[in-house]
Amino acid sequence: MAAPGSVTETEISEQPAVLARVLREAPPAVEEAVAQIVTLRPLAVLLAARGTSGNAARYLKYLIEVKLGLPVALVSPSTTTLYGAQPSLSRVLLVAVSQSGGSPDLVEVVRAARSGGALTLAVTNCADSPLAQESDLHVDVLAGPERAVPATKSYTAQLLVLWLLVQAWAGADRQLAAPLPDFAAEILARTPEVDQLAGCYRFADRLVITGRGFAYATAREAALKLMETSFVSAHAWSAADLMHGPLAVVDAHMPCMAIVPAGPGGEAMAPVLQALVARGADLTVVGDVSGGGAARSFTLPQAVAEDLAPVLQILPLQLLAHRVALARGYDPDSPRGLSKVTRTR
Amino acid sequence: MAAPGSVTETEISEQPAVLARVLREAPPAVEEAVAQIVTLRPLAVLLAARGTSGNAARYLKYLIEVKLGLPVALVSPSTTTLYGAQPSLSRVLLVAVSQSGGSPDLVEVVRAARSGGALTLAVTNCADSPLAQESDLHVDVLAGPERAVPATKSYTAQLLVLWLLVQAWAGADRQLAAPLPDFAAEILARTPEVDQLAGCYRFADRLVITGRGFAYATAREAALKLMETSFVSAHAWSAADLMHGPLAVVDAHMPCMAIVPAGPGGEAMAPVLQALVARGADLTVVGDVSGGGAARSFTLPQAVAEDLAPVLQILPLQLLAHRVALARGYDPDSPRGLSKVTRTR
Repeated sequence: MAAPGSVTETEISEQPAVLARVLREAPPAVEEAVAQIVTLRPLAVLLAARGTSGNAARYLKYLIEVKLGLPVALVSPSTTTLYGAQPSLSRVLLVAVSQSGGSPDLVEVVRAARSGGALTLAVTNCADSPLAQESDLHVDVLAGPERAVPATKSYTAQLLVLWLLVQAWAGADRQLAAPLPDFAAEILARTPEVDQLAGCYRFADRLVITGRGFAYATAREAALKLMETSFVSAHAWSAADLMHGPLAVVDAHMPCMAIVPAGPGGEAMAPVLQALVARGADLTVVGDVSGGGAARSFTLPQAVAEDLAPVLQILPLQLLAHRVALARGYDPDSPRGLSKVTRTR
Repeated sequence: MAAPGSVTETEISEQPAVLARVLREAPPAVEEAVAQIVTLRPLAVLLAARGTSGNAARYLKYLIEVKLGLPVALVSPSTTTLYGAQPSLSRVLLVAVSQSGGSPDLVEVVRAARSGGALTLAVTNCADSPLAQESDLHVDVLAGPERAVPATKSYTAQLLVLWLLVQAWAGADRQLAAPLPDFAAEILARTPEVDQLAGCYRFADRLVITGRGFAYATAREAALKLMETSFVSAHAWSAADLMHGPLAVVDAHMPCMAIVPAGPGGEAMAPVLQALVARGADLTVVGDVSGGGAARSFTLPQAVAEDLAPVLQILPLQLLAHRVALARGYDPDSPRGLSKVTRTR
């Protein structure tokens, strides 16, 4: 019998090696897929994904919108699976992202999209999955078998593969990602800092996490990890959406975290951080801490471009969720009520 | 000095009259807009909105995807306002939904979409707003001046106008909506039932609200009202997304509400309701309560089509948020930290 959380901990620690493997081995499959995509000249992109993979899909939405100027929609599977919509999708690319490639709703969405004329690409961690087989194109995220229920290494592998895909599609340089494995190893070695953070949140039952642009995916994924492993009611908001109502829940009793990369997305956080501090919130900043006002921080390498930073931002937050769960006596490897492959329609 | 919450209460109570006005007066402007839209023959639709209007936009996403088979994307304004994306949007319709029509980010998004080739439609409660003036087309939701910070009557007016728009676009009957004003009046008269519900949630500081398909917008808007007025950490999840991780936060200490209309979306809730009850959750069902297992319920008229039901579903939940806020000694008319027009970029 393994110690509680040992599977997750191993998988978290594998990430520098996984990222290096992605950089080394993913480019041929990515370029093969991009060759087909470029031939289609898509006018719009649809993304189908849920849970952690849904957060990776949100990251992809920003990448495509910013770097390629194409509109990107997150699919609502129920329009197909419940209401029988028959979409008309010529010159549309549909990307389905899933660790297991096993959820029936995604398979059904891919099937409906193909019969509506879309080109379909599956991005999975499982090359012989139904989703991979049902799609026109497949890219493997190469994370290796993931056994813990909370996804960790498959998430950062998805982010990096999706970034490589958009760089190739945009004809841009992929060398910018070369330092990521070393940076990831450095961050994951900073466990004393994470343990100190975990002490702060040991008794929190609510939490607000915010970020903007590329970092919004990080806020959502951090909240999901804290919900899954530690049963915190962790609420992720884009910093702009937070100002349109939810800000009212924030007072001195509400722990807040903000993801603040160097770059336009991080700079746009300044008024939001001020609003949180003005309301007496307890604030932890992850990233660029030059703004001030936060009670504590976890700094990240400033040399990484903002659009790549999400690959690193999530690392201390995965560890944080793991440590808070252990402190509470839960087993992060198999949270109550969840299983590795979720079968929804 | 008005009594706390009296402005919101008046605006909530005006909704039957507002819905009747929309049915009577909105169709000419809706049909004029649809005539232009049909000429464009859009291949995709973009929606720009935040806060309560963002929830109305989510409802529109399902309507268009199901009834028209077109892909619909929710715009991430930061791609334009922060990262300077220049989208390429020929044969794309962009719909911006906003009560005030005053948020600078939406105006900037409309401007960028127009210069990218999109046809732009503003749906506002304020015909002389910057958003209305910047857009090619405008439809007024006719809710009348809204003074309370939490949007109520402008939300149901938005839903009904957007439904009329899609019905006209699909060449479908709008008479189905005729009974809504009377149903709305009947629901709003059931204050003793709402007061009983409010008693149950008087001391709740967390809450999970779930719904699927068309009703997902209701879950989100109900959560937003409870956050804005009563400072509850209310978490809205589509019932499928709930199963992909967040379900772990649910136990006997977590109050849950589910929106369950008659129709495929409501039927698909059955396994989710079972999962919640199996975890010992305290469950309130709003809508069709035939499934069983809930601790309590608020029934809604079964004769209303599932795609129209959101106009009614939100009514008891607006009242609920109002009553919980009053019980806690807050003033629902002007929640802490919020203003009627939120200016984000």
